[in-house]
Amino acid sequence: MKIGIIGIGTVGEGVLKILSKQQSKLEQTLGEKIEIKKICDLKEREFSFGNFSFTSDYREVVNDPSIDTVVELIGGIDIAYDLALKSLENGKNLITANKYLLAEKGSELFKKAEEKNVKIFFEAAVGGGIPILSPLKEGLFPNEIISIKGILNGTCNYILSRIQEGKSFREALEDAQEKGFAESDPTFDIEGIDTSHKIILLAFLAWGELKNPKEISIEGISSITPEKIQKAEKNGKKIKLLGEAFKGDKGITVRVSPVEVNSDTLLYNVDEVYNAVEVEGSYTGKTLFYGKGAGMDATASAVVSDIFKIKTSSAWIL
Amino acid sequence: MKIGIIGIGTVGEGVLKILSKQQSKLEQTLGEKIEIKKICDLKEREFSFGNFSFTSDYREVVNDPSIDTVVELIGGIDIAYDLALKSLENGKNLITANKYLLAEKGSELFKKAEEKNVKIFFEAAVGGGIPILSPLKEGLFPNEIISIKGILNGTCNYILSRIQEGKSFREALEDAQEKGFAESDPTFDIEGIDTSHKIILLAFLAWGELKNPKEISIEGISSITPEKIQKAEKNGKKIKLLGEAFKGDKGITVRVSPVEVNSDTLLYNVDEVYNAVEVEGSYTGKTLFYGKGAGMDATASAVVSDIFKIKTSSAWIL
Repeated sequence: MKIGIIGIGTVGEGVLKILSKQQSKLEQTLGEKIEIKKICDLKEREFSFGNFSFTSDYREVVNDPSIDTVVELIGGIDIAYDLALKSLENGKNLITANKYLLAEKGSELFKKAEEKNVKIFFEAAVGGGIPILSPLKEGLFPNEIISIKGILNGTCNYILSRIQEGKSFREALEDAQEKGFAESDPTFDIEGIDTSHKIILLAFLAWGELKNPKEISIEGISSITPEKIQKAEKNGKKIKLLGEAFKGDKGITVRVSPVEVNSDTLLYNVDEVYNAVEVEGSYTGKTLFYGKGAGMDATASAVVSDIFKIKTSSAWIL
Repeated sequence: MKIGIIGIGTVGEGVLKILSKQQSKLEQTLGEKIEIKKICDLKEREFSFGNFSFTSDYREVVNDPSIDTVVELIGGIDIAYDLALKSLENGKNLITANKYLLAEKGSELFKKAEEKNVKIFFEAAVGGGIPILSPLKEGLFPNEIISIKGILNGTCNYILSRIQEGKSFREALEDAQEKGFAESDPTFDIEGIDTSHKIILLAFLAWGELKNPKEISIEGISSITPEKIQKAEKNGKKIKLLGEAFKGDKGITVRVSPVEVNSDTLLYNVDEVYNAVEVEGSYTGKTLFYGKGAGMDATASAVVSDIFKIKTSSAWIL
């Protein structure tokens, strides 16, 4: 495989590290060489684990005929959409961790991929290091999916864990920012927008309908107080920010809101920056997938697993 | 795909039901017809959802040149081994839910499959309806696996949940037998043998070494008393039968024993007939997979997902 990677932040560095450190094992199992042909980032960087060919112009990656697979890790929409679309148009497979891009522009991108007979995989976009998209799309495929519930944003879950201990929302947010779990502008996380993108993608894989983020109900956690949490606690419950999706008589509902969860459920013990997704299938009943929803290594692991999927799996029918 | 199914017990009936009820959706996604060419069972049976061609001689299935994939669901070793080996020798893919067969005879069967360039998938052999083998072998593939811990036997977990309520082991076992969760001879379950087969298979997928069941330490739950459970409870713990595997300086250790688990872990809330597997990877940290470990529909869902894998995924390098 000949890979181009665009965007070398935390996750990108993790991908380079895993591909370098596990190279012989990975190539042996894949049965072919994995070559990182070109890396695009605004700043050229050096790494202890290898030398790479840098460019600051993403067109040099998406137009390089020797590259068969583009890994998009810059985030956001504008440039990401342009490079994703051009990569697909040029007949390249696309791997992305960008839930925002796919929730907003997925329809165009998935259509283009189908037209060009190339693959899009995005395991890292939801639940970080947890294998959840492939199990949902493949392992649970025989089922009619009834509902999906997820703790999908590690920042919010960390903040809720701190409020649980008695901190105010403001103090908990500052704590998260100090530890690097929340950005200086935390709006996307705390207002539930990031969670909405992720539950929209899960619902899309379950039922084939990509909801418009503007048309679903989204409530974040900024109004959660220690008092609300203590009240829930008295009833043996915790408050968690859930992305929820279910299929009813009137079609598919997708929403994001803080929900009280019971102490006898697995979601109750999903604390700190961990994520979990519960999927109810018509045959399997409830299954749950749990793990680290963010972080360099965990998310990079999901990206690298997608690099393998490009070679070992058929394209998903989306 | 042209499929032969050998053994129509609970799971086999579930497979026929899912394949029949979801036929158009399944064929559309797979892009080809799914034909159940022949079914082998000692007794011919009728089903509300379709008519099938029966035989009582499994050789009619494994020697039928029109069948490309054999689904083995009879359990046990003797006949199952013979039909599995002959299916592979005849160039057919093999899907099986038979952990006993694979733990005991996997080396020969996986070798034969590689030699004949056919696939073996066995998602239903571990964790029933939970997608766990594919996530471990594919989703977590970039990782060095550090450890695996699983509640892998629903019968034992149900019995422990009843002892937790104050029943004696004997009473709890009788309750399980009445409800159909334990067999009349429950040895395989309660002595930890079934769990040992499953953790052996998980360790095999993680590290490529198939342990001999006779050479690992196995302790079941027949010595668990309400007193032991109450003592654990006082320390905020529950007793669970765990299959555990880890890689250390001296190689791979696989073992089965009752273990006290903490109330702040997800395994603590895995009660009744549910199963869960926790996998610690070098990059992802701890991930956990939870769901129904048995039952007609859940296990059949895993078998049907394997039928899809035959078409959509490369063979595993085992």
